[in-house]
Amino acid sequence: MTITHPPKPGTAHWIYAHPRRGSLNDRLFQAGTEELAIRYDVATSDLNAQGFDPVLGERDLGDLAAKPGNIAVLAGEAYAENQLPADIRAEQAKIAAAELVVVQFPLWWYGMPAILKGWFDRVLTAGFAYGDDDPEHGVPRRYGDGGLTGRRALVVVTAGDDAGTLGPRGISGDLESLLFPLTHGILWYVGIETLDLHVVHDADTLDAAAVDHEIARLRKRLHTVGTETPIRFRRLRDGDYRETRALRADLYPGRTDLGIHVVPAPRDPDPAPR
Amino acid sequence: MTITHPPKPGTAHWIYAHPRRGSLNDRLFQAGTEELAIRYDVATSDLNAQGFDPVLGERDLGDLAAKPGNIAVLAGEAYAENQLPADIRAEQAKIAAAELVVVQFPLWWYGMPAILKGWFDRVLTAGFAYGDDDPEHGVPRRYGDGGLTGRRALVVVTAGDDAGTLGPRGISGDLESLLFPLTHGILWYVGIETLDLHVVHDADTLDAAAVDHEIARLRKRLHTVGTETPIRFRRLRDGDYRETRALRADLYPGRTDLGIHVVPAPRDPDPAPR
Repeated sequence: MTITHPPKPGTAHWIYAHPRRGSLNDRLFQAGTEELAIRYDVATSDLNAQGFDPVLGERDLGDLAAKPGNIAVLAGEAYAENQLPADIRAEQAKIAAAELVVVQFPLWWYGMPAILKGWFDRVLTAGFAYGDDDPEHGVPRRYGDGGLTGRRALVVVTAGDDAGTLGPRGISGDLESLLFPLTHGILWYVGIETLDLHVVHDADTLDAAAVDHEIARLRKRLHTVGTETPIRFRRLRDGDYRETRALRADLYPGRTDLGIHVVPAPRDPDPAPR
Repeated sequence: MTITHPPKPGTAHWIYAHPRRGSLNDRLFQAGTEELAIRYDVATSDLNAQGFDPVLGERDLGDLAAKPGNIAVLAGEAYAENQLPADIRAEQAKIAAAELVVVQFPLWWYGMPAILKGWFDRVLTAGFAYGDDDPEHGVPRRYGDGGLTGRRALVVVTAGDDAGTLGPRGISGDLESLLFPLTHGILWYVGIETLDLHVVHDADTLDAAAVDHEIARLRKRLHTVGTETPIRFRRLRDGDYRETRALRADLYPGRTDLGIHVVPAPRDPDPAPR
């Protein structure tokens, strides 16, 4: 396991995206960061409050903006030459220090609000978060071994839909699949393991007692984030994928759902007789 | 089929998100809009060039910003009271007029760039794009019958990954699943049918001849957008979903992939003997 940025033990980074003070998300954020601060040094990114600009563009490139070429490649060069804007470098420092990352947002149009998506677009540059070759294994450093390896993440998401609508075979798609681009495509890509999602359903219609219950439930969940078993996505370098980057035909034959990218739970090595 | 905003025949709206002039996406955008203009009146939203602000926030609410409550609900009220910002009303007018919508972007972190995600966050408000009850069928107007029913969309996406990586069982997840939140969660939700994705793979490493080929391929694709059969996602009101909003147990029993939300292709009613 090659780590580019070793995390500082006992340090957390809570990335939060909701525009309204007094909202359910605001209350969860206030209570959650308070609870987490009992066990961790907590840095926060309150993106709306900070006025974070989520649009990756020429100003991310410093002097390199004059060069032609792919913007993601140039942003990696800007990182290497320390030309990224100061706000981006500050965000990189927060996540680089953290061993625990919390990502909290309301589900808008079945994904992240733009301000949060753009945080990843701008902050997780090449060089910083992914892209070096791993000389030991001969594969690119991504999917389980990026620049942020050695961290775990908790995704806290509120949704107006109920659990059936967002559950297996639900009309909106199951939430694990809808957020696969975040949990696998972003977090796992750069080496961060994610825990099971922390979901608040029916978020627009909770009464006061239900909100209190959800706050208590989040506080309780935060007690176990250090000891839970993360989702075991497959590592690129473990040989589960063929040269084409498709999953080996003998693993989950015939299946095409996104769940095939999770390693099956280990069988009990010595099962009790039934 | 209840239509809130009848489209104007022969009108298209091309929504485009890429920050760099001279990029592959820029060339596809220039050629594509030129080609489409032969058959359609084409309005464009060049989001980076316009400096579009993708962050849904208090300023979207007009006088309603002083009210507590859910921001999506309040944005719907702001729409009804004609208090949305002028730039949002202009975008709504463009998509409301179009019978064909093109959405073009580079795949960043396995999803849309923030500036495009935020276009949907801000423009597709309640009242305008979804949310009225359908008195005839007794279900909410969403998933096949929103405020923008009667339109079709072509999603044009460039990806650095190759076709295997983004194909069925590919390590990054198949692109149809990764973009399900866009094609189904956004477009179909508000009533817009989508055509098969138009994908440019290996987008960061194409040589000049390959770029020319991709430009020609897009021009050719645009000849058929009016006659292709769209993806047949299931309509909420057609009875395929139970009260829980989970797909009926007799439809694709046992499957949990997102493909279950597509109606199976009709069988040939009178198949020829083999």
